[in-house]
Amino acid sequence: MEKLLAKWERLCASSGLTRFVDINLRGVGQVMFQDNPLTGALFLAAIGWGSYAAGAPRVAIAGLLAVVVATLMAQWLRVNEASLRAGLYGYNGILVGLALATFLAPGALMWVYVVLGAAVSVVVMLGTANAVKPWGSALTFPFVLTTWLLLLATYGFSGLVGVALPSGNVVTAFQPYQASPLKLVELVQGVLQSISQVFLKGSGVAALLLVAGLAVNSRAAAAFALAGAMVAVLTAHLFGAESELITGGLLGFSPVLTAIALGTVFYQPSLRVTVYAALATAFTVIAQAALNVALTPFAIPALTAPFVLVTWLFLLPRQCFEETTTGSADSPTPHAT
Amino acid sequence: MEKLLAKWERLCASSGLTRFVDINLRGVGQVMFQDNPLTGALFLAAIGWGSYAAGAPRVAIAGLLAVVVATLMAQWLRVNEASLRAGLYGYNGILVGLALATFLAPGALMWVYVVLGAAVSVVVMLGTANAVKPWGSALTFPFVLTTWLLLLATYGFSGLVGVALPSGNVVTAFQPYQASPLKLVELVQGVLQSISQVFLKGSGVAALLLVAGLAVNSRAAAAFALAGAMVAVLTAHLFGAESELITGGLLGFSPVLTAIALGTVFYQPSLRVTVYAALATAFTVIAQAALNVALTPFAIPALTAPFVLVTWLFLLPRQCFEETTTGSADSPTPHAT
Amino acid sequence: MEKLLAKWERLCASSGLTRFVDINLRGVGQVMFQDNPLTGALFLAAIGWGSYAAGAPRVAIAGLLAVVVATLMAQWLRVNEASLRAGLYGYNGILVGLALATFLAPGALMWVYVVLGAAVSVVVMLGTANAVKPWGSALTFPFVLTTWLLLLATYGFSGLVGVALPSGNVVTAFQPYQASPLKLVELVQGVLQSISQVFLKGSGVAALLLVAGLAVNSRAAAAFALAGAMVAVLTAHLFGAESELITGGLLGFSPVLTAIALGTVFYQPSLRVTVYAALATAFTVIAQAALNVALTPFAIPALTAPFVLVTWLFLLPRQCFEETTTGSADSPTPHAT
Repeated sequence: MEKLLAKWERLCASSGLTRFVDINLRGVGQVMFQDNPLTGALFLAAIGWGSYAAGAPRVAIAGLLAVVVATLMAQWLRVNEASLRAGLYGYNGILVGLALATFLAPGALMWVYVVLGAAVSVVVMLGTANAVKPWGSALTFPFVLTTWLLLLATYGFSGLVGVALPSGNVVTAFQPYQASPLKLVELVQGVLQSISQVFLKGSGVAALLLVAGLAVNSRAAAAFALAGAMVAVLTAHLFGAESELITGGLLGFSPVLTAIALGTVFYQPSLRVTVYAALATAFTVIAQAALNVALTPFAIPALTAPFVLVTWLFLLPRQCFEETTTGSADSPTPHAT
Repeated sequence: MEKLLAKWERLCASSGLTRFVDINLRGVGQVMFQDNPLTGALFLAAIGWGSYAAGAPRVAIAGLLAVVVATLMAQWLRVNEASLRAGLYGYNGILVGLALATFLAPGALMWVYVVLGAAVSVVVMLGTANAVKPWGSALTFPFVLTTWLLLLATYGFSGLVGVALPSGNVVTAFQPYQASPLKLVELVQGVLQSISQVFLKGSGVAALLLVAGLAVNSRAAAAFALAGAMVAVLTAHLFGAESELITGGLLGFSPVLTAIALGTVFYQPSLRVTVYAALATAFTVIAQAALNVALTPFAIPALTAPFVLVTWLFLLPRQCFEETTTGSADSPTPHAT
Repeated sequence: MEKLLAKWERLCASSGLTRFVDINLRGVGQVMFQDNPLTGALFLAAIGWGSYAAGAPRVAIAGLLAVVVATLMAQWLRVNEASLRAGLYGYNGILVGLALATFLAPGALMWVYVVLGAAVSVVVMLGTANAVKPWGSALTFPFVLTTWLLLLATYGFSGLVGVALPSGNVVTAFQPYQASPLKLVELVQGVLQSISQVFLKGSGVAALLLVAGLAVNSRAAAAFALAGAMVAVLTAHLFGAESELITGGLLGFSPVLTAIALGTVFYQPSLRVTVYAALATAFTVIAQAALNVALTPFAIPALTAPFVLVTWLFLLPRQCFEETTTGSADSPTPHAT
């Protein structure tokens, strides 16, 4: 593996085009915090498979277009070269592209939207990174904010139709029902879909490709993704969330990201860190349910906002879990720019 | 009084258990900015009486459980010892416990919620204190944010029922009616309930216990609490708010906290400070009415968010009201950690 | 022109009353970032004409009262003298006054509201300026926040009636219709109204007075205002926004401010800056449509929030567009206090 990556790095150093491909692949990998082109390639395969299986190949194409636009925009803005090469200006772009193509009807204006959204996501990324630099990183906040604005605006534009958007409503009491015990097959399904829903698709094959992509760069990340998904499914089941939401992974994709971020990216794995990350992961399920409810009147999805909110809340204390005096929270992290 | 407190402090120095009790009592007192175990004990008596009189002793028990969980969580996170001993990691916890037990139906999952919410409130406290350190303190923002998320999520969980939550609705025009002149008895009732509603109960006896608790530590705090409640009732009446809201103290508990905070905690009482605090207190009534309306579609209560919002707005200017060159706004305050 | 202004400045230096008038005129001019009393006088003429033509002279009077109250409040708070003299504590006040008188039914309490809102806007201005000092300026955020709270609260007060407020609703799908091609007369109308709606009135005469007011202080500002309005109208038409909103200027007033701010105030005009400002201006139309939708359940108008949001997003990167090493983004700007 190292040999392959070293060879690829030599290729990038000699060719501008290969470097450009490398930056975009790393951008895809950074959605789950992995600065590795092979991870990005496996993630792309997962996205491609998920789109193809769902009969919507345009979703994968929109994602690809968006990450390329975001990288070009970052180059035009002359961003920090090291951050650019680590893919930090691409991961929000690809998510914007995937989300817009997932929720909106196809059409020329949808593609205008994808290009506009990808470009703006870079500006928002630069700004958010500045704003949170003292204690954290931008996470997927630029994706969430940009996409929310673009999706909300479609309700005021006749040229864009949010075919897959939820319908607006006031918050009403949940109809209680007899919760059935969680079966093993549902647990497995919920765990896999929670992972694949990070890229807005429910697909077991995509989930396995994503876990493989994580594992080639960081076994800890793969382990925390799986464990985080399991914590999410069990927490959601404990509180009596809807079964379809749980097995569809719709309450688990944000917790998966929280688990990876707090367990492996911003802290080094340890017992205390694992407990802290587990609390945050469980609370991300609460936050996901809460934001689903809070966004009901606005008829837009929560996207990964629960992950951003809870991870920021758990990073802001700048908690130091290491016995030595140099806190890991202050050291450079993959997302810091 | 000083003698009693000195004896108690000696007891705390010699016994870990007494110190733990002391920390929790101070945590209760810090809800109204008082770092004093006797104040905490009187506040606890008010909470106990209010819960008992309302036929819901579980509310007081949930509050007690939550403050203890919060203190334990703070110890596990190895927070700053001085802040811990001043009760700064307990006051949000007790409010989370009281609010959850007030708005949710009793049951095993409610207690899980209380423990989870109290633990998370400490994380949010640490983060908020970091975020606002340059110009203010966390106030009750950790309580508000944590409780909002937990309450919103109940609409997505069949295991938790928000029996006492408001019902969701779109904002509609207020039905104007002939406002009757404010009677003295209503003024007195409104003032007392405004004070007791800080702890989510409308009770005259509890209000008197709370004022006593304030007075044993700071006569200025007791005076500003009463004056703030009066300003709130009169402002609400002037603008024609609903009589039941006014006399029930539901438009006054946030202004009471604003008055104590700006008039006695962050500034030293003076004529200019009193004018500034009075403006903020009156505007907190506006903010309370505004947030009540803004939260209508979400079917959750405003809690003390109006107090947090307005007090932050009036602290952010870092206004200096003293004639000397050393501004009080920059000196350590009870809530600063 | 310079001679006239020099003479006026001598007059101000010798007379407290003239200085007070000067401060208030500059406050009016600062709504569009112009620190010039003549600009302020022309803007006031536009406001007066707009109010008179709409049969609501009280709107102009409320604006005048509010800017005077705001200036007095700033003096009472002993703000920085240079910022005060540049009118930085007045521009939010006049907007609060205009907005309250526009949306609320006349009456004694409305005037109380105008005075209260103008006073509070100064506090919010001081706080916001502190909060965003490292990377930007307060823009019209103090106006937006103060007015939103005051307007929301009217739904809880029988004494104040929001006769011109939108009615609350959940977000529903946009009814698509056949968009007709944009006629030249509609383009011109849309451009002019977009400019005059900055002061909450749709009036061609007022728009011309405002452009004149801009031009006497900065031809670049006048050009960017016109170009920004044109970008806004074309963007809104491209995405299929409602024709009446476009021609009424209701999707264009925020983009006009974005164009002036990014194109002439925070950056020096250049090709790269113009591209950056054009992207921001087009995205402000998206943000305007999005906030219009997002505020539907709350039954309040977006005011200039889209301008504030997008301009902040595009300032936060602290992008440097100059070839030299000293970034203009870090140098003092007219709004910085």
